[in-house]
Amino acid sequence: MRGAVCPQTLDAAIPLPHLLFAQKPPTTSPPHPDAGAGAGDGAGRGTGLSQEEQKRIAAHRAVEQVESGMVVGLGTGSTAAHALDRLGELLRRGALRDVVGIPTSLKTAAHAAAVGIPLSDLDSHPRVDLSIDGADEVDPSLNLVKGRGGSLLREKMIEAASDRFVVIVDDSKLVPRLGASALAVPVEVVPFCHNYTLTQLKTLLNQQPHFSGAKLRTAADGSPFLTDNSNYIIDLYFEDGITGDLNAISDGILRLTGVVEHGMFLGIATEVIVANKDGSVVVLNK
Amino acid sequence: MRGAVCPQTLDAAIPLPHLLFAQKPPTTSPPHPDAGAGAGDGAGRGTGLSQEEQKRIAAHRAVEQVESGMVVGLGTGSTAAHALDRLGELLRRGALRDVVGIPTSLKTAAHAAAVGIPLSDLDSHPRVDLSIDGADEVDPSLNLVKGRGGSLLREKMIEAASDRFVVIVDDSKLVPRLGASALAVPVEVVPFCHNYTLTQLKTLLNQQPHFSGAKLRTAADGSPFLTDNSNYIIDLYFEDGITGDLNAISDGILRLTGVVEHGMFLGIATEVIVANKDGSVVVLNK
Repeated sequence: MRGAVCPQTLDAAIPLPHLLFAQKPPTTSPPHPDAGAGAGDGAGRGTGLSQEEQKRIAAHRAVEQVESGMVVGLGTGSTAAHALDRLGELLRRGALRDVVGIPTSLKTAAHAAAVGIPLSDLDSHPRVDLSIDGADEVDPSLNLVKGRGGSLLREKMIEAASDRFVVIVDDSKLVPRLGASALAVPVEVVPFCHNYTLTQLKTLLNQQPHFSGAKLRTAADGSPFLTDNSNYIIDLYFEDGITGDLNAISDGILRLTGVVEHGMFLGIATEVIVANKDGSVVVLNK
Repeated sequence: MRGAVCPQTLDAAIPLPHLLFAQKPPTTSPPHPDAGAGAGDGAGRGTGLSQEEQKRIAAHRAVEQVESGMVVGLGTGSTAAHALDRLGELLRRGALRDVVGIPTSLKTAAHAAAVGIPLSDLDSHPRVDLSIDGADEVDPSLNLVKGRGGSLLREKMIEAASDRFVVIVDDSKLVPRLGASALAVPVEVVPFCHNYTLTQLKTLLNQQPHFSGAKLRTAADGSPFLTDNSNYIIDLYFEDGITGDLNAISDGILRLTGVVEHGMFLGIATEVIVANKDGSVVVLNK
């Protein structure tokens, strides 16, 4: 089963000796030796590393912070997948031991199990030493948008329970304001009367100058997308990002009956590792 | 099927001519003619009407406010059941017509259908003229605790969408502070890592001087009680009620990832109809 899940990434771990020692930043590491070459899957992104290589560099840098005996929150998504592979590799090699992973989704649980990471949950391990996860957007205050993959509730619960939450992104995820990428800011809602909740969200957010719409997320067959908690996702869109007091906006959304959680992660990230196209790494700390 | 659900209440509607005209209160109506008699099922409550009679008096008084053509939110619980029966009776008699009911639970939907109330939902009728429902506690500012029956989310969604929300209670539900009855203040949570959410709630509420504990609600067979939304309920207990800024406490609870909704209904009720043991009615308005 292990090979069936992610054989290519297991075999493709790259050594990054120049990234082994994390400085207290913001700090830019020297460019990766591969910078400028192998940009094959970064279509339309100009010269430099592919986006996938950038994600892997950030992920490996974060996994350097894992120590034997730690309880580690395991993120969900294409960037976090590189961290799972690397962590599994280090455990198999014996470079790390007695690590317990807390998966943030059913998909991550399957992937982590396949690469040999022992798993538990917050009920058994209510305190997490370190979580590692990607993000859809990172603003200058290290606030995030997460959950375009639909796992926002479990991610937020586990990452907020962590002493340290290290976010791993390629540089395309940096935004001046949350929502500014014009992609979705997700809100998890109960299925009951979700159209009414959609209307309530629109009414609330019409006060936002750049709010451009909200819609129910659907699966490929047109039915509502279901989260791991069997809830729905309503995606919010902003033409130029969210302005104003993010904590007040968060409270306003959470006060709506029918809303379970939203994808703005405010004040939860403690460090953001950004991999640039030239192979350099910038680490942003709170 | 109609007879199977509630035949005895359908047959037991009592005329209350002295209650037909609602004053703008607080106002005390004269005692009910039956006061002091028929206290059979009010065990331990002294002389006067039974608690069931009190509930029926309050419910019938509220239904007087329903007009033909209205969209009416239909509450859940033993007091609201009297309102369903009365509304169904008036529709069958032709005293009311073109009323659409919005049920706050699956149980209420079944009961309302059985007594002949046409049903819809908030998605189709996002604006509700009037909701009628019971409450577990009412404080002097007309804030409520609801949801000991487990339907708090749907109740809050529909009642907050209502132009008017009339609460119907017997006088045992009046409390100086929410939580002061020492019965549960319910919180609906997602099943995922509910023990962790329980711990988070305890940590938050330990700041409350009278907080005395929190526990997962279980069904008769010991398994977790399931809401209509397939979530769990964590019951909070307070020895002498909740003190401090209720809105701030509400926001604190809603901010916990894993919390879906709670049973404090703050600023939603517009009128509370209280039936006393002597048959008199007090109407409290905001």
